[in-house]
Amino acid sequence: MSESMQGLKRSHRCAELSNSNIGNEVTVMGWVQKRRNLGSLIFVDLRDRSGLLQIVFDENSVGKEGFEKAGTLRSEFVLAVTGEVVKRSGAVNTNLKTGEIEVIAKSFRILSESETPPFPIEANSQTKDEIRLKYRFLDLRRPDIQRNLILRSKAATVIRNFLTEEGFLEIETPILMKSTPEGARDYLVPSRVHHGKFYALPQSPQLFKQLLMCSGYDRYFQIAKCFRDEDLRADRQPEFTQVDMELSFVNDEDVMEVNERLIQKLFKDLIDVDVELPLQRMKWIDAMNQYGSDKPDTRFEMKIIDVSEVVKNCGFGVFTSALENNGYVRGLNVKGQAGMPRKKIDALVKDAKELGAKGLAYLCVNEDGSYKSSFAKFMADEELKAICQAMNAENGDLLLFAADSFKVVCDVLGTLRLKLAKTLDLIDENKFNFLWVTEFPLLEWSEEENRYTAMHHPFTMPMEEDLDKIETDPGAVRAIAYDIVLNGVELGGGSVRIHQNDIQEKMFETLGFTKEDAHERFGFLLNAFKYGVPPHAGLAYGFDRLIMLMVKADSIRDVMAFPKVKDASCLMTKAPDVVDAEQLKELGIEILDEESEE
Amino acid sequence: MSESMQGLKRSHRCAELSNSNIGNEVTVMGWVQKRRNLGSLIFVDLRDRSGLLQIVFDENSVGKEGFEKAGTLRSEFVLAVTGEVVKRSGAVNTNLKTGEIEVIAKSFRILSESETPPFPIEANSQTKDEIRLKYRFLDLRRPDIQRNLILRSKAATVIRNFLTEEGFLEIETPILMKSTPEGARDYLVPSRVHHGKFYALPQSPQLFKQLLMCSGYDRYFQIAKCFRDEDLRADRQPEFTQVDMELSFVNDEDVMEVNERLIQKLFKDLIDVDVELPLQRMKWIDAMNQYGSDKPDTRFEMKIIDVSEVVKNCGFGVFTSALENNGYVRGLNVKGQAGMPRKKIDALVKDAKELGAKGLAYLCVNEDGSYKSSFAKFMADEELKAICQAMNAENGDLLLFAADSFKVVCDVLGTLRLKLAKTLDLIDENKFNFLWVTEFPLLEWSEEENRYTAMHHPFTMPMEEDLDKIETDPGAVRAIAYDIVLNGVELGGGSVRIHQNDIQEKMFETLGFTKEDAHERFGFLLNAFKYGVPPHAGLAYGFDRLIMLMVKADSIRDVMAFPKVKDASCLMTKAPDVVDAEQLKELGIEILDEESEE
Repeated sequence: MSESMQGLKRSHRCAELSNSNIGNEVTVMGWVQKRRNLGSLIFVDLRDRSGLLQIVFDENSVGKEGFEKAGTLRSEFVLAVTGEVVKRSGAVNTNLKTGEIEVIAKSFRILSESETPPFPIEANSQTKDEIRLKYRFLDLRRPDIQRNLILRSKAATVIRNFLTEEGFLEIETPILMKSTPEGARDYLVPSRVHHGKFYALPQSPQLFKQLLMCSGYDRYFQIAKCFRDEDLRADRQPEFTQVDMELSFVNDEDVMEVNERLIQKLFKDLIDVDVELPLQRMKWIDAMNQYGSDKPDTRFEMKIIDVSEVVKNCGFGVFTSALENNGYVRGLNVKGQAGMPRKKIDALVKDAKELGAKGLAYLCVNEDGSYKSSFAKFMADEELKAICQAMNAENGDLLLFAADSFKVVCDVLGTLRLKLAKTLDLIDENKFNFLWVTEFPLLEWSEEENRYTAMHHPFTMPMEEDLDKIETDPGAVRAIAYDIVLNGVELGGGSVRIHQNDIQEKMFETLGFTKEDAHERFGFLLNAFKYGVPPHAGLAYGFDRLIMLMVKADSIRDVMAFPKVKDASCLMTKAPDVVDAEQLKELGIEILDEESEE
Repeated sequence: MSESMQGLKRSHRCAELSNSNIGNEVTVMGWVQKRRNLGSLIFVDLRDRSGLLQIVFDENSVGKEGFEKAGTLRSEFVLAVTGEVVKRSGAVNTNLKTGEIEVIAKSFRILSESETPPFPIEANSQTKDEIRLKYRFLDLRRPDIQRNLILRSKAATVIRNFLTEEGFLEIETPILMKSTPEGARDYLVPSRVHHGKFYALPQSPQLFKQLLMCSGYDRYFQIAKCFRDEDLRADRQPEFTQVDMELSFVNDEDVMEVNERLIQKLFKDLIDVDVELPLQRMKWIDAMNQYGSDKPDTRFEMKIIDVSEVVKNCGFGVFTSALENNGYVRGLNVKGQAGMPRKKIDALVKDAKELGAKGLAYLCVNEDGSYKSSFAKFMADEELKAICQAMNAENGDLLLFAADSFKVVCDVLGTLRLKLAKTLDLIDENKFNFLWVTEFPLLEWSEEENRYTAMHHPFTMPMEEDLDKIETDPGAVRAIAYDIVLNGVELGGGSVRIHQNDIQEKMFETLGFTKEDAHERFGFLLNAFKYGVPPHAGLAYGFDRLIMLMVKADSIRDVMAFPKVKDASCLMTKAPDVVDAEQLKELGIEILDEESEE
């Protein structure tokens, strides 16, 4: 049975009612959260987007027939109820916004019935992900997911209004664009009109936003859908949303300044967190040296300490040979963990090996000042003392050491630092620690391609003082690039772009592109650059990730309405799916036999 | 040569300066619109997004070297100029916001040089579309296009803020979704992970927004990208933008009410046009009868008049036989055009035939009261007089008649009405005439498929009073659907959706779907409907078209940053394009030989 709502008009959402409505006749509509029969009364918690409201069905008020109908109500039925708001007759429910009131139904309609849902609609459900996502339309009813999506909508509003007031224009760039061979794997769209040709879905609007600067739009932004056909991890989705911006006639300071104010406003307006400005800045090299990461989590200490100088002449071959191979010896001081069981230390050693290290050396400074160590036997007492001093070790501390190349030492100690902080509960989850990481390397050496590749992209501007090293020492050139990091997660990043022909040409040369290569890849942007290009710079945030951190969700799936799972499929709609042969024929493509793909 | 802007900071955009800045030192940046040498001075109009500003280079102020450099400036060079704002020494330019002032340059840098652009950067350019779109990055510099895109950005802001204040949440729905066989042709995206399967790009978020209502989000909106792989017309693009919304616990009146206020605000805030509310309403049948169109242009009269009753016994076989075949005889009174040359009338007859009519009858009521007519000889004088009276004809009027089926009569007279209004300049281009068209037929008969098809979509609610006709007389059932029309263009449309199982089942039956068919097509929505679905309704606007009408552009290409041309390609980026064989292999597809497609 489902009744029409003709002639009815909702007066309030459920949780918009309060003490001030007592005595009012109201009409509310929503879903039955639960029904309880209590003596001669029936109680229903009615749920809508705003929250819960208690409805009371009393035969005296709703009539015999109505009372019987109320007895048939089950979870997730949709009701329209007209009645009077009264002070709650039973105990006040302090967990509820509407806990002091209830509505005595005078009349009601069942707008829609419901089968028994496969899982209860409640916050923090323990239901398996597969079931949740198959029934996403029910999962989306859960109040925690609703809270996330409501906050996401508000965040978009705050961002848009802030940027609009700062003179940014929102301009839509194409979704059907051209495939560019740089970067991640593109999603392709076969063209029906142009046989054998394909569109690509954008990985970002990078080239278009730079074009818009060439075209004089001065300040652009877009909350843009982007696509990458990559294997998924917990915080990746095939389509994701980016808050994308670009500014003309600015330098890096201008971009960071406006974005700091944006972040401050966003966190204040949405989750009432005060972000102090200016944000901390950290050079890339310092982040790597102290935190072993270009996105350091600064909510806890335990910085990496370099002891290369201290151990360079020690008797432990592992340390000295690493140094001889232009490597480093660095350590972590895990305070008060000298008593860590051997099994746990062994697990850390195993982690280190998985990260590429040959091992992990340790030194427990026992409470009585004695040592337990993997390498103490190779060292004199004063050598051990010097190490402890360098590491600021006190009795009871556990010292861990990696001796390897810069990359491996950073990876190992950076990863162990995070892992230990979690295990030892060192992280204050109420902190929101922002920082800018700056002065990234412009280029990184690709062993695979046997050439330098752009760390950000080929249009990133080198720092002026490093310009003369582009030809002589490309690996040492720093970029005018900046990442914004929150609690150890990269929220976004950007750079000043090259607007000078001569620098751009040098850059392409360094990347090993001929003029023809460059033109094939970025032709339309290079064409545009011939006709007067303003200095410009930009930044983009991962919007899903930003919201995830703001609401402290575990996965970006909890801040998107219709996410996909690891194999990039949608469990609810069963996308992707087979299509008619006719459709493929029109597109001029056919499916390869599975074998022939090998 | 391109100089860095290090150490410089822009103080104003060009046209932000006015009399109140006289005496100030300012730094402006922008593009050279033109340079003129006048005696010992050089004048440059500098352009940015805000407009033009006159810069004066005087050797006394800018130095000898600077003056020489200023002599090298050419169109589209990018400059940074620091100087003093002064009252204009020459004549005031009243065409310019900054026409009373100029800036005497003290120093300047050439931030970027420019080749000579292929066409001048100016409003209302006569450049061919192909060249404009190939060099879209230059075309986008034109002030009229900039004005359009700036208004578009503002319109999005107004819409978002209005809807947000009305309790709507902006929720993003997927771009990579499942292909549904109803509607236009889908763009497909091959899946790399799932061999032989495809995603489809959404033609609209219709199913997802209905799901969100099932999930309790109450009021949803999105400014959403939509895609249709159809052959393009002037106002169609393969990807377009829709202002999409859906509301729970509402009826058609609620949807129209909130949208009327949205339209009123939009037109007032953006183009200072007062839209009077409530908007006119017109039933579909009246629109067809009086205007021959479901999107009538009411900026001029010349309504269609039915004379079937008057001519039913006349001597003109064309009229009477049309009536005998359940057709109609209807006419247009083209005021004061009795003297229209025969050649022009013949052209109208030809148009009528192209629209499916067997002919077009005419009757000129000459200034002296005599007739010139294609059919007068078949009629008695009193019959002609009765026709003239029914048509409100006065001396000097031209009467045109179609006698045919309902569809053909409407098509012919509706089309000729618009054509004549344009030719005869009857349309007041300053008017913004809105109306709602309501009570659309729920179904239309498809000769091709030999079944009824849904006029809007299969979830559209029939009018309550027509419910019992669904089985007995499906063609007569009206829908609770509404289109919003502006100046003869469909701006948007929507409907109340079916939320009752029994009605939905009847609807599917009428459309000739078995339960299995329905489930295959709309399975996840029907699943969701099992668990308590609120009454809901929605509407969607074509955003590009809305902006086009607001700025009075000729084509939606002039209100999009990067449009495609008729063959769905982008002349600037050359998308779509060929891709690497490797990419296709990974996707498990191959391109068919062109011949084998036949």
